[in-house]
Amino acid sequence: MTARALEWVDGRLRVLDQSRLPWDRVYLELSDYRDVVLAIEEMRVRGAPAIGVAAAYGIALGASGIRADGEDEFLARLGEVMKAFAVSRPTAVNLFRSIDRMSTAARGEGIAEIQRALIDEALRIHDEEMAATGQLSELGSELVGDGSMVLTHCNAGPLATAGYGTALGVIIAAGNRGKRVSVLATETRPLLQGARLTAWELQQEGIPVTLITDSMAGHFMQQGKVNCVIVGADRIAANGDVANKIGTYTLAVLAGENGVPFYVAAPTSTIDLSIASGDQIPIEERSPDEVTGIRGIPIAPQGITAANPAFDVTPHRYVGAIITEKGIIGEPYVDGLRAAAGPEP
Amino acid sequence: MTARALEWVDGRLRVLDQSRLPWDRVYLELSDYRDVVLAIEEMRVRGAPAIGVAAAYGIALGASGIRADGEDEFLARLGEVMKAFAVSRPTAVNLFRSIDRMSTAARGEGIAEIQRALIDEALRIHDEEMAATGQLSELGSELVGDGSMVLTHCNAGPLATAGYGTALGVIIAAGNRGKRVSVLATETRPLLQGARLTAWELQQEGIPVTLITDSMAGHFMQQGKVNCVIVGADRIAANGDVANKIGTYTLAVLAGENGVPFYVAAPTSTIDLSIASGDQIPIEERSPDEVTGIRGIPIAPQGITAANPAFDVTPHRYVGAIITEKGIIGEPYVDGLRAAAGPEP
Repeated sequence: MTARALEWVDGRLRVLDQSRLPWDRVYLELSDYRDVVLAIEEMRVRGAPAIGVAAAYGIALGASGIRADGEDEFLARLGEVMKAFAVSRPTAVNLFRSIDRMSTAARGEGIAEIQRALIDEALRIHDEEMAATGQLSELGSELVGDGSMVLTHCNAGPLATAGYGTALGVIIAAGNRGKRVSVLATETRPLLQGARLTAWELQQEGIPVTLITDSMAGHFMQQGKVNCVIVGADRIAANGDVANKIGTYTLAVLAGENGVPFYVAAPTSTIDLSIASGDQIPIEERSPDEVTGIRGIPIAPQGITAANPAFDVTPHRYVGAIITEKGIIGEPYVDGLRAAAGPEP
Repeated sequence: MTARALEWVDGRLRVLDQSRLPWDRVYLELSDYRDVVLAIEEMRVRGAPAIGVAAAYGIALGASGIRADGEDEFLARLGEVMKAFAVSRPTAVNLFRSIDRMSTAARGEGIAEIQRALIDEALRIHDEEMAATGQLSELGSELVGDGSMVLTHCNAGPLATAGYGTALGVIIAAGNRGKRVSVLATETRPLLQGARLTAWELQQEGIPVTLITDSMAGHFMQQGKVNCVIVGADRIAANGDVANKIGTYTLAVLAGENGVPFYVAAPTSTIDLSIASGDQIPIEERSPDEVTGIRGIPIAPQGITAANPAFDVTPHRYVGAIITEKGIIGEPYVDGLRAAAGPEP
């Protein structure tokens, strides 16, 4: 892996500040859960799986910091910690799955034992995401042909997952199997995760990458230069509709129009069976400043109105396959996703 | 009009430097044709109709500056001037149309008379573009319903045309007729003509405008927020295929997918009947630095490869209508475009 997005070191959470990459490699050593909340809100840690892992560690940190008279007070204050994470970002379901799991894990004989159980559960969640992204990367690499040009959007690499990556994991695994793979990476405005993070990760992996603006993807598909599109996901509804970084829907439509396979790579922790379809997925609206400026430099006239939806929803009819650690799922997604992510029978 | 892109003042060409808008309003006073070539190459003047007008003035300037022994030497050196413009930018056909017209206009009794004839022809080309964009704006405004949200890409306003604008001309004319119109403006990476120029022009016209990244257009169409898309053009082939700023093809596909009408507004000077279809239109590849940086600030890791096609081609099957000063043209485009732009019968 190029760099560790998250690491649990001596009872603290070490976060690689992704907002400053690729220029500065700054690690934040966080021991206060409120700083973890802030790191998520400010997208210093981002990517649905990584957000889920960070929230788990953050809740463990919050629990360790509670000084309470008795278990009832402890659990009440633990609830407040969890609530702070629940309102940090709305779209990635991995966050809410982590909160649920940490909530369930808050058991033990006395406060110290609960605190220890929460750290264990956070470590387990991280381990599971590592394993899941490794496994789905291997499985998905079958879909990438030798000599392929793969188009990807945003960043779904090791940084985004605190593991091996999803979309980039698949691409890297294909490369490791000896396939010649090149990548067309969209810059991904407004926050440029493609230009800053995907380009950087692939550069370090030695995989040839060409950076394009988001507006160029259609042109290259139309020219027959793209063999497949692979993206990550922030939440997948029970019917296979996929919320992912703004611009993903556009790529899916363009892929469909040009006969290019469109794949989504995500661990099953990204699947939300409680939501029937994508129109029920909450879409985060972020600050207009991210659109009217780039790296702090204004790019538009003063006083201009801007919109900034951070995600969009791709209806499942555009999705050729969903690559998970439990297998590659195709239509009918309702059945495949339930089998992969539902409760054990 | 918000600001004059080009003006012929006392035998010199005054160019509003669009690369510095909206922050600085800098006028370049050009008397050497090579500076006009440079202003076109560096996109200080841009937009197909404005490039055509600038080239005409530039050729007139070049002709005025020639000191020659006799008409033969004069015409040989005038040919070199024209060649410098012909290689400045490849895609906008208005440039080549201006060169052709100036070439034909280079007639007269002696050098001084030819020089005068070339200035007259440049002024005439400018006048005609003013009239054409005014007329097509009025005609096109019929297509914009009261209360519409119009999505546009890049900048096809007064600045781009040295006239009333094409896509923005239509929108402004609809507003002047009392229709309530709002605009969703894509920022248009890499050079941000939407964020810098369209947002600025509409702000000054008092037309409500919301800035979005290029990647958001699909999402807003999917949400049913867009009533029509109107863009300009850099070259229209005989069959109605349209070359325009990179990203236009993507918007056309998205519009088609979502049942949103997609219109192209352009004077007939943008129609190239000599080219049968869009795949023969030369697409300019500009410097990768425009993609790897924004306003001089790097946005990607050092040493990264980037592609930078400046235009794409939208096949005519996605185009709902082409709005010209001679009328609104629909399928079959071959007939309508020939009638509008062909030689007088």
